[in-house]
Amino acid sequence: MKILILGADGYLGWPSCLYFSRRDHEVTGVDNYFRRNAATELDCESLIPAPNLLQRANIWKEVTGRSIKVHIGDITNYEFLLSLFREYNPDAVIHYAEQPSAPYSMMSRDKAAFTVQNNLISTLNIMYAVKEVNPECHIIKLGTMGEYGTPNIDIEEGWLEIEHNSRKDRFLFPRQAGSLYHTTKVQDTDMIWFYVRTWGLGVTDLMQGPVYGLSTEETDLDPRLTPSFHYDEIFGTVLNRFIVQAVAGYPLTVFGKGNQTRGFLNLRDTMQCVYLSASRPAARGQLRVFNQLTEQFSVNQLAEKVKIVGDRLGYNVVIKHINNPRVEKEDHYYNVKYTGLFDLGLKPHYLTDEILESFFAVTDTYKDLINRDAFFRGVSWK
Amino acid sequence: MKILILGADGYLGWPSCLYFSRRDHEVTGVDNYFRRNAATELDCESLIPAPNLLQRANIWKEVTGRSIKVHIGDITNYEFLLSLFREYNPDAVIHYAEQPSAPYSMMSRDKAAFTVQNNLISTLNIMYAVKEVNPECHIIKLGTMGEYGTPNIDIEEGWLEIEHNSRKDRFLFPRQAGSLYHTTKVQDTDMIWFYVRTWGLGVTDLMQGPVYGLSTEETDLDPRLTPSFHYDEIFGTVLNRFIVQAVAGYPLTVFGKGNQTRGFLNLRDTMQCVYLSASRPAARGQLRVFNQLTEQFSVNQLAEKVKIVGDRLGYNVVIKHINNPRVEKEDHYYNVKYTGLFDLGLKPHYLTDEILESFFAVTDTYKDLINRDAFFRGVSWK
Repeated sequence: MKILILGADGYLGWPSCLYFSRRDHEVTGVDNYFRRNAATELDCESLIPAPNLLQRANIWKEVTGRSIKVHIGDITNYEFLLSLFREYNPDAVIHYAEQPSAPYSMMSRDKAAFTVQNNLISTLNIMYAVKEVNPECHIIKLGTMGEYGTPNIDIEEGWLEIEHNSRKDRFLFPRQAGSLYHTTKVQDTDMIWFYVRTWGLGVTDLMQGPVYGLSTEETDLDPRLTPSFHYDEIFGTVLNRFIVQAVAGYPLTVFGKGNQTRGFLNLRDTMQCVYLSASRPAARGQLRVFNQLTEQFSVNQLAEKVKIVGDRLGYNVVIKHINNPRVEKEDHYYNVKYTGLFDLGLKPHYLTDEILESFFAVTDTYKDLINRDAFFRGVSWK
Repeated sequence: MKILILGADGYLGWPSCLYFSRRDHEVTGVDNYFRRNAATELDCESLIPAPNLLQRANIWKEVTGRSIKVHIGDITNYEFLLSLFREYNPDAVIHYAEQPSAPYSMMSRDKAAFTVQNNLISTLNIMYAVKEVNPECHIIKLGTMGEYGTPNIDIEEGWLEIEHNSRKDRFLFPRQAGSLYHTTKVQDTDMIWFYVRTWGLGVTDLMQGPVYGLSTEETDLDPRLTPSFHYDEIFGTVLNRFIVQAVAGYPLTVFGKGNQTRGFLNLRDTMQCVYLSASRPAARGQLRVFNQLTEQFSVNQLAEKVKIVGDRLGYNVVIKHINNPRVEKEDHYYNVKYTGLFDLGLKPHYLTDEILESFFAVTDTYKDLINRDAFFRGVSWK
């Protein structure tokens, strides 16, 4: 397959490039370095200083002999995106190219407006480019489990049949997100579903939970291939932050009561999910939605797991509940259906003590690079 | 009350300015002339050449002695919008300032991107300005019945309680719109609901059906106060187009089968609805949704009504079904609840033969100004 990966410099984008490349697909990676630059601006850079995307592609070539084509540019510029589709005519496009941080989207009007504009115009442009160049191209869009929020009913896989006054119809499962960032993903879904219905495009929407981990089979081939890894309040996900906090001897910062429950998955499983989706594309006119997670945990459960393993390894882990800077339910029902990707063949890497131990081990090698000032910034939702 | 009306140059914005002004409220009207300019660009200008907004405010002053303040500028520029809130500190803001045309949003990538950017950034800016300057300010947002699309269940007033696997929760009523423009209104709703929950703002979302008519008590005071009136395929609504087509001796252009059913209301009733909403504001933390219509008709029913009255008046009206350039259901269930505004005191002007006759009479006085080339452009959804 010819694969176009948008947001290729990111935590998920880069290992996805390697995963597809190693499996003999022609990969083109695109990034505008937004996150790289924003992390510098906010002094919360990746734990491991990542070579730039072109340099990383060269390292990959050196290590494996395989080529990844790289373009640096902004896909909200339609002419740029269109030129990529015309040059490569991909079989599938994977859309990671969004501003991905909830706190970032809540910091100011300007950052909120950037998030709206970047996320929606990038998605709009992909719809138009696919329609214009090749409507057969399969669009794989990274959504987020956060789109659903925390409803008081079971969360189905994207869709819900509703019976009302003895009549029935099938709708997108209700979405009400907990940040402006997550809301832009809901807005993406609205827009994608409109163009799927109207133009008959084929889209897979991966409703992903928070991802953890910093290695895949491919990135392990050479330390210079390690993905960018954020553990800070702005760009880090919760388990990644806890592990780095534990290694740094900094208290694990639990927001509020810590009963907030979410679905999680290992970085290696994200690779599988995206790959399985690409291998078995959505039909034309189908918006196929998968809930992309392998397990559910509360924040407290994650903190406890990190503490137990960390203490055993000698880190003396402290858990600290702090006032929740976010507006979110701290006690809520949460029960998610996620069978679609397992049906496609997903083999999960569950969060075992062994996985946590190896995560501690890798993180410890970068111990001296940890920026403790990045752990907590207190970005308030109010 | 101090009222800030955004989109004050438009079909609804201008008569709203007059309606509030005549009832002793302090009105500030704002517009960037987007529609005025777009209509010139696309050669589908208002039937009645409207003086610019400053000129119209001067005419209003001359006729009634009342003042309406006018600012010309773009509210997607946050500094501009913020300066207005700081200067006037309004009790209510009425948000008409959106790109309002479905066909316009389907013409090209650039026009789609403009629609997304204009509609969402304007709404975002209003949320931020209200939070920053005075969170007590009541936001009245013009939504559209088109957000709901044509579901196979009864359309409730904004919200739906869903029972699923023996558990219950209340959600926004499912929305799946029929154009990119309508989809941006769904996206607006997602965003507004997020900030209402998070910041406790008070918002009324008026889910309005297509409006018809070109006179209100206030605009009738002087012909120079007539609202801008579009009857073309891009900016015109269906009944307005039919009346002008009938007067011009042009066939009424019915898209497809014509069984498409929608909720309609008279321009005078829009004034009442907006005024009633402003007089009884939403509570802080409430997203209050009203379905703003007074009757349901199919396109065929409207065409028949126009033909019957038009023929009686001697216009010899012809109805012509043309291939539907849109992607929409031409046979569908449609049953809308709309009691909220009636409960607030709405006194409807139903679409009687007398109303149609007076509509014909006013339109006929502008007969020589009709641009027949504007009736059909065939903007395709595909």
